[in-house]
Amino acid sequence: MAEVLEFEVEDRLLARAAWSRIAEPGDEVAWAVVDQLGPGEALRWVVEASQASGAVRIEPGAGPLSNERLRRAIQRWTPRLKGLDPRRELSILDRLGGRLLIPGEPGWPTSLDDLGLAAPMCLWVRGSLDLRQAARRSVAVVGARACTQYGTRVAQDVAMGVADRHFTVVSGGAYGIDAAAHCGALAAPGPTVAFLAGGIDRLYPAGNARLLCEIVEAGGALVSEVPPGSAPHRVRFLLRNRLIAAFSTATVVVEAASRSGALSTAARAAELLRPVGAVPGPVTSMASSGCHRLLRDTDAVCVTDAAEVAELAGSGTDVAPARVTVSRPADNLDLIGRKLLDGLPVRSASSVESVARAAGLSVAEVVAGLGHLELAGMAERVGGGWRRSGERQ
Amino acid sequence: MAEVLEFEVEDRLLARAAWSRIAEPGDEVAWAVVDQLGPGEALRWVVEASQASGAVRIEPGAGPLSNERLRRAIQRWTPRLKGLDPRRELSILDRLGGRLLIPGEPGWPTSLDDLGLAAPMCLWVRGSLDLRQAARRSVAVVGARACTQYGTRVAQDVAMGVADRHFTVVSGGAYGIDAAAHCGALAAPGPTVAFLAGGIDRLYPAGNARLLCEIVEAGGALVSEVPPGSAPHRVRFLLRNRLIAAFSTATVVVEAASRSGALSTAARAAELLRPVGAVPGPVTSMASSGCHRLLRDTDAVCVTDAAEVAELAGSGTDVAPARVTVSRPADNLDLIGRKLLDGLPVRSASSVESVARAAGLSVAEVVAGLGHLELAGMAERVGGGWRRSGERQ
Repeated sequence: MAEVLEFEVEDRLLARAAWSRIAEPGDEVAWAVVDQLGPGEALRWVVEASQASGAVRIEPGAGPLSNERLRRAIQRWTPRLKGLDPRRELSILDRLGGRLLIPGEPGWPTSLDDLGLAAPMCLWVRGSLDLRQAARRSVAVVGARACTQYGTRVAQDVAMGVADRHFTVVSGGAYGIDAAAHCGALAAPGPTVAFLAGGIDRLYPAGNARLLCEIVEAGGALVSEVPPGSAPHRVRFLLRNRLIAAFSTATVVVEAASRSGALSTAARAAELLRPVGAVPGPVTSMASSGCHRLLRDTDAVCVTDAAEVAELAGSGTDVAPARVTVSRPADNLDLIGRKLLDGLPVRSASSVESVARAAGLSVAEVVAGLGHLELAGMAERVGGGWRRSGERQ
Repeated sequence: MAEVLEFEVEDRLLARAAWSRIAEPGDEVAWAVVDQLGPGEALRWVVEASQASGAVRIEPGAGPLSNERLRRAIQRWTPRLKGLDPRRELSILDRLGGRLLIPGEPGWPTSLDDLGLAAPMCLWVRGSLDLRQAARRSVAVVGARACTQYGTRVAQDVAMGVADRHFTVVSGGAYGIDAAAHCGALAAPGPTVAFLAGGIDRLYPAGNARLLCEIVEAGGALVSEVPPGSAPHRVRFLLRNRLIAAFSTATVVVEAASRSGALSTAARAAELLRPVGAVPGPVTSMASSGCHRLLRDTDAVCVTDAAEVAELAGSGTDVAPARVTVSRPADNLDLIGRKLLDGLPVRSASSVESVARAAGLSVAEVVAGLGHLELAGMAERVGGGWRRSGERQ
């Protein structure tokens, strides 16, 4: 055993870094074993079990983990035990000026703990942002890579607007809506966090390398649960989405076709009882079809601007302002006043009796109402009759 | 009294036609009096009461109608009693080839009875459509007069699509979305109904006169609760909206600014427990802001095409088809298969052990999985190793 694990497994950082290398994201068996034995002891146990040909057994209390599930997990982890040494990845992290966050320690974003057994082993982080603090007031703005100009514009506007309101903008660093969201936050300027599917040393996709660097330089963060050197596998993208959903106070989908990964982020957020928003778009645009499906089939809230997103994600004080509407003089009239105005001729004046007939009002109501309309400048007396004055509607 | 009412008040058609002239739409006192006394007897009573200087009293059982409410109503109706003769309006109707429908008689659309005391006294109808039958499978498609090209297109498409599915399209005959909805139905071709705010002899707005005629010629109907000769007062537009909402199985708002009358139609429909749909649009378009408010603040359902509108309005058999999505070979893989595919190199082949390490799978899982991928044409053996084949994802 000593010949395999050549690093100090009692070091919680090293041990968790090793686990993030051995187990794929979302490996619930790994999480349960680490939770029960502690990361170092769990490593020792795995090495021993992988070398034993016979039955594996974990101490009583492993709960729902059947021997069969444990055995399959060990077989999954075994190929990665050979030459395992997290000091390599940590030295890369160090060169990048990054840090490793582990659950329960200072700086760990506790919102991720809601993932339970699917929580990450650790977070590999580049950038100075205090993630624990940032998570408390944050909005995930996600969407399609293949977005439209409309989507880009809305994602930028929403991100800029929520950043102005001191929310951290969270996204996945991808082309399209993700990039627009990060850009909008940077323009505010406000901090933004990109959760990457591969290692934080791999600025993927390459076309966003400049943007990802800017995120770090501007006080934001690049975050991954897989160690430096890990490739951005497709399955890792899907699993990465759960981190975006869990980290953020709310998730907003800007544009998403019906297969977009952003819909999985929204689904994870809903499972975690986080508010989900969807930005509508033209029904003629396939790029908005996923958003419309969210609005039809789920509890997602229709959001149309940053104020509404802030209301979705924020505390009670982030209420979106009521829409401003232009008021017209007739708005202040009661139903009798409006009927009277309807019954008043525009040009030649009519008698009170004639106005009463036209409006369907009593003579007394017309006499009283005309006095009010006259004072409001909406009716005028001409000879013995009355007609409208002022605004012609 | 005989000197005032010069027509046969026992004729229910004549009496109700007279009431539709005396009382404005939605006059609940008129409805209650007519309901209790019958339309003819109610007329006699009103004439008598309007001539009596003293207290008015209706037979016991008037229920919630206080004497004060009755007195005010009589004062409202009195100016219109002079020279009252519904035979004039009925002869206009006759010249137009129209008919008068009254509650409880054949052809009356019973859906309007849900309005209770706010139900219309009668309906003045041009066109041959069987309104009772049409109401049973009908969709109100309403929206802004000041609509965009997008709104026009969607309203037409939705109307055409639901007409194809044998729904009657109902709207208000106005410019903008209303006109587009009627046009779409006519193009299907399918019957369509326009509820007018003024008399059915007044083809208002004038610019839609040709369209309104076409509706009649194509087997649809123009309908109003006010008699021929009545002007389309603003208040009557608002009250007309309740008829559209009550008549139709469901109401869909295509484009509506935040003050649009279409929102009042939607609100009436919701009060009557009819399903309400809202078509989303760009959040940058003020013309869609009312629809988005419906989606945010009410139970309105997001609808994006005719199939979804039909599902909203129809019986259980009108289910919108699931969205067609393009499937890829990898879609049929389970999580292990997808991880394996992720771990397979694209160019130079790797050993089973190396693939297991990259994918985070056990050697046994890799061996079994490679067999499946090879059969599916997604992996190939090269020398002693494996790589992807076929689609490069």
